[in-house]
Amino acid sequence: MSTTIDVPESSNVNVKGKALVVAPAREGGIKKGIAIMDFILRLGAIAASLGAAVSMATSDQTLPFFTQFFQFQASYDSFSAFQFLVITMAIVGGYLVLSLPFSIVSIIRPHATGPRLFLIILDTVFLTLATASAASAASIVYLAHNGDQNTNWLAICNQFGDFCAQTSGAVVSSLVAVVIFVLLIVMSALALRGR
Amino acid sequence: MSTTIDVPESSNVNVKGKALVVAPAREGGIKKGIAIMDFILRLGAIAASLGAAVSMATSDQTLPFFTQFFQFQASYDSFSAFQFLVITMAIVGGYLVLSLPFSIVSIIRPHATGPRLFLIILDTVFLTLATASAASAASIVYLAHNGDQNTNWLAICNQFGDFCAQTSGAVVSSLVAVVIFVLLIVMSALALRGR
Repeated sequence: MSTTIDVPESSNVNVKGKALVVAPAREGGIKKGIAIMDFILRLGAIAASLGAAVSMATSDQTLPFFTQFFQFQASYDSFSAFQFLVITMAIVGGYLVLSLPFSIVSIIRPHATGPRLFLIILDTVFLTLATASAASAASIVYLAHNGDQNTNWLAICNQFGDFCAQTSGAVVSSLVAVVIFVLLIVMSALALRGR
Repeated sequence: MSTTIDVPESSNVNVKGKALVVAPAREGGIKKGIAIMDFILRLGAIAASLGAAVSMATSDQTLPFFTQFFQFQASYDSFSAFQFLVITMAIVGGYLVLSLPFSIVSIIRPHATGPRLFLIILDTVFLTLATASAASAASIVYLAHNGDQNTNWLAICNQFGDFCAQTSGAVVSSLVAVVIFVLLIVMSALALRGR
């Protein structure tokens, strides 16, 4: 009699009374699917974050003329926000590479909650880091495109077109990494619950 | 016999064989504590986000002199990033108020995973929103304080001291909301696991 009780007990929270015997196996499959998706998304996030870092770090444009007062040159280290983006995206990319083994453990053992909990907590921290750097760089890119009339900050993208295009690309790439992080956290939360 | 089997079954995943009878009650207490902490932190986050919105929305300074070309006036709607912060922080504050009932449900029923899952997913989305607005505003505040030599964007905080102080305060307040969001997500993840 104890075995007939065991099966509904271990799955009663999620399944709520229907298909009690089939549920645990199917749920393991869903978890494995989530873990595999997690791994693939992490690879995408690595590409996006390192792409953003490299794209921003190589942005540099010098105009072929100069005056007595200005040296018409723009590079990422003119702006703290762009330097912040390069450093942060490199750190985030490094974290994502180091997180791949934990993602693989989740694929091999879909019911282990330790790796998932570890990943969801660190993902949240690095999501915040990535979002902060992407948003601060986006804010500077916006200023470079549009300028600000009240403070007399002039748009520089008319002169530094290539520089602006490259930095905008880096910001878009880092925003892709942010979106992937949000998906990773939502998927980990779903997998943590469906146990 | 079925009742004596029920107790170890419902707690076997976390406790792994020791103190099987005592564990469920203690774990429920931990979960209830996390839920109460969650509620209190949400109240703090409401104060921080609405404080940031109001502080930024009321920032306005007009200097007591003007020239033919410039009207020396600074307000939050001169900068898109500051407008973004006001709108975003108002939305985040509204979401947090609406999330309070779900937090109360978690206090009353510490073992229910539905509300926690709902909150962790929406918290992640609004964490991203809050971080993006806080970081983009912080980036503009940094420029207002320090300026940028390469692009000839001059620091305006020498003139607009009060404006800068008030917008900096709003940014700090929104960063407090971000930190609370990270804590909320980590706590929800811990509570989701410990089932």
